[in-house]
Amino acid sequence: MSDKMKQIVLASRPDGAPRPENFRLEEGDISTPKDGEVLVRVHYMSLDPYMRGRMDDAKSYAAPVPIDGKMEGAGVGEVIASKADGLKEGDFVMGGMGWATHAAISAKAVTKIDPDTAPITYALGVLGMPGLTGWFGLTEHGRPKEGETLVVAAATGPVGSMVGQVAKSMGLRTVGIAGGADKCKLAKDHFGFDDCLDHRAYDDASSLQAALKDACPKGIDIYFENVGGKVLEAVLPLMNPHGRIPVCGMIAWYNEGGLGANAREGALTAPKLWRTILVNFLSVNGFIISNHWDRMGDFHKAVAPMIADGRIKVQEDITDGLENAPEAFMKLLTGGNTGKAIVKLI
Amino acid sequence: MSDKMKQIVLASRPDGAPRPENFRLEEGDISTPKDGEVLVRVHYMSLDPYMRGRMDDAKSYAAPVPIDGKMEGAGVGEVIASKADGLKEGDFVMGGMGWATHAAISAKAVTKIDPDTAPITYALGVLGMPGLTGWFGLTEHGRPKEGETLVVAAATGPVGSMVGQVAKSMGLRTVGIAGGADKCKLAKDHFGFDDCLDHRAYDDASSLQAALKDACPKGIDIYFENVGGKVLEAVLPLMNPHGRIPVCGMIAWYNEGGLGANAREGALTAPKLWRTILVNFLSVNGFIISNHWDRMGDFHKAVAPMIADGRIKVQEDITDGLENAPEAFMKLLTGGNTGKAIVKLI
Repeated sequence: MSDKMKQIVLASRPDGAPRPENFRLEEGDISTPKDGEVLVRVHYMSLDPYMRGRMDDAKSYAAPVPIDGKMEGAGVGEVIASKADGLKEGDFVMGGMGWATHAAISAKAVTKIDPDTAPITYALGVLGMPGLTGWFGLTEHGRPKEGETLVVAAATGPVGSMVGQVAKSMGLRTVGIAGGADKCKLAKDHFGFDDCLDHRAYDDASSLQAALKDACPKGIDIYFENVGGKVLEAVLPLMNPHGRIPVCGMIAWYNEGGLGANAREGALTAPKLWRTILVNFLSVNGFIISNHWDRMGDFHKAVAPMIADGRIKVQEDITDGLENAPEAFMKLLTGGNTGKAIVKLI
Repeated sequence: MSDKMKQIVLASRPDGAPRPENFRLEEGDISTPKDGEVLVRVHYMSLDPYMRGRMDDAKSYAAPVPIDGKMEGAGVGEVIASKADGLKEGDFVMGGMGWATHAAISAKAVTKIDPDTAPITYALGVLGMPGLTGWFGLTEHGRPKEGETLVVAAATGPVGSMVGQVAKSMGLRTVGIAGGADKCKLAKDHFGFDDCLDHRAYDDASSLQAALKDACPKGIDIYFENVGGKVLEAVLPLMNPHGRIPVCGMIAWYNEGGLGANAREGALTAPKLWRTILVNFLSVNGFIISNHWDRMGDFHKAVAPMIADGRIKVQEDITDGLENAPEAFMKLLTGGNTGKAIVKLI
């Protein structure tokens, strides 16, 4: 094996949307695993919206990436050296290996995966963190009931597509929101959404709202929140009494920097948001999936058979080469990807 | 009996805080009960913050009071004529009789009360809607656990004092917020709060927040929301992970008219609020107690013995005469009352 590894570090904190200069590609020596660790040659790494949050130093559920620190993220790869019981060379594992070609990592921090039961990339998407996020948030906090209507944005992403497909299998009307006509077609034809709206076709929240009203003639019972912004504004007034809003992200606001700023005239205000929760008896639950890894077994039990027999479809968007990860990540934040964003490192 | 009745109607919709000219006292004939109805001579009527919402014609969980319509509200009184099975002259009942000395009302819409087990005014407060609101919201959506910290505003009001006393009985640290030093003394000495902060002593949310931080050294696990505004702003950053916020009102914002307006510089914004829910995995549940009348039996079973033996204290603020109801209501909205606001009509 080569004795050099590559990694991408955080060169500086972004002000708004990340730019190329916020990242830096570095080359270095490959670590030697310590006792209890394995050395992993990473085959694929995951790109996920939450990584944007780690680039800021605002108070959050996780510590920020330090300046000059390796960008965080999950990967799948092959164990090429082991000083841990239970894992040997040739095993495949998934874990938080960061934006790097190689990582020495505690054996306790990785999950062994079987490359024969499903493509190893699935451990980063449909059978991994994003899939679990969608399934858990929907079933635990969304409390779906047959005949209800669900709305989810980023409908062709790995979270949104899981939410929509699981909800559909439970007898809900599913309405996706996605960026662009192609994605909307994918949402309907591939992922089986009953309808899908292209948010780019609507200038503002009120025109999007009018279209949503047509698409959701019985109102909205569950809004699975992963974007915030204009979509939230459009959805809120259409929520039915006793509606549920699981909140797992707000990608539209990640880049706005000034979450404190009172944005444009007419924007959703805190009192309006609070009042809607009150007068419609909404149940709003924030969650971060890392608190719920213990549900991974239940999730696989429920969903893996549906993937195997094609009831749940998969869509991946694979970029080649670590050096292209920053660009792919910036694209992801503006919706330029189609499906689960992954970088191939080998 | 006199053949005239008095009532107060909505003369015009308020723009911001209600003013005397928004109300009008009228005299009229006493109705004759129809089949299935009883005629009630109202002894006491209730004043509650939710009535402010009924004066607007904004979309809400209840229809607004029409212009020239009788102001809505609960009362307790004596049946003076009955055309309904199961209720006879001399019975005492509680129900939505409005701001009026007399009301003909469906027997199905009232609850018979026993004037010998507790003062009849309790049916409007500690054993009625406000008490149930506090108990239900705390136990159902607050999910209190021993050793946790609870914050509630309007701590000496009928909802806040119920919340604080029930939480205290379950082993929580209870911190009240109230307007004025006298109310804070009442909260601690009479209602048993561990601490109470006078929100009038703090110019802005950040100074209130600093004081709350001292009063809640282990952070806040449950914020029972009935006020919104500055208190919400002060509380939010102190919420512990997995905190719960039952939302039953936002009196501070009822009079602001412009829920849509982006208020002063630095005020809480929708994205900031949403982000706090996400990063602290908060559970926010709006509720309106009229959806949960079926819990009244459970509530009485849990709480009536605690009132009878003095573990739960009562405080009423009784104004004399229907003609003084508007002024008492306006006082209530600015915190000028102390304890459950009631108007004596007989």
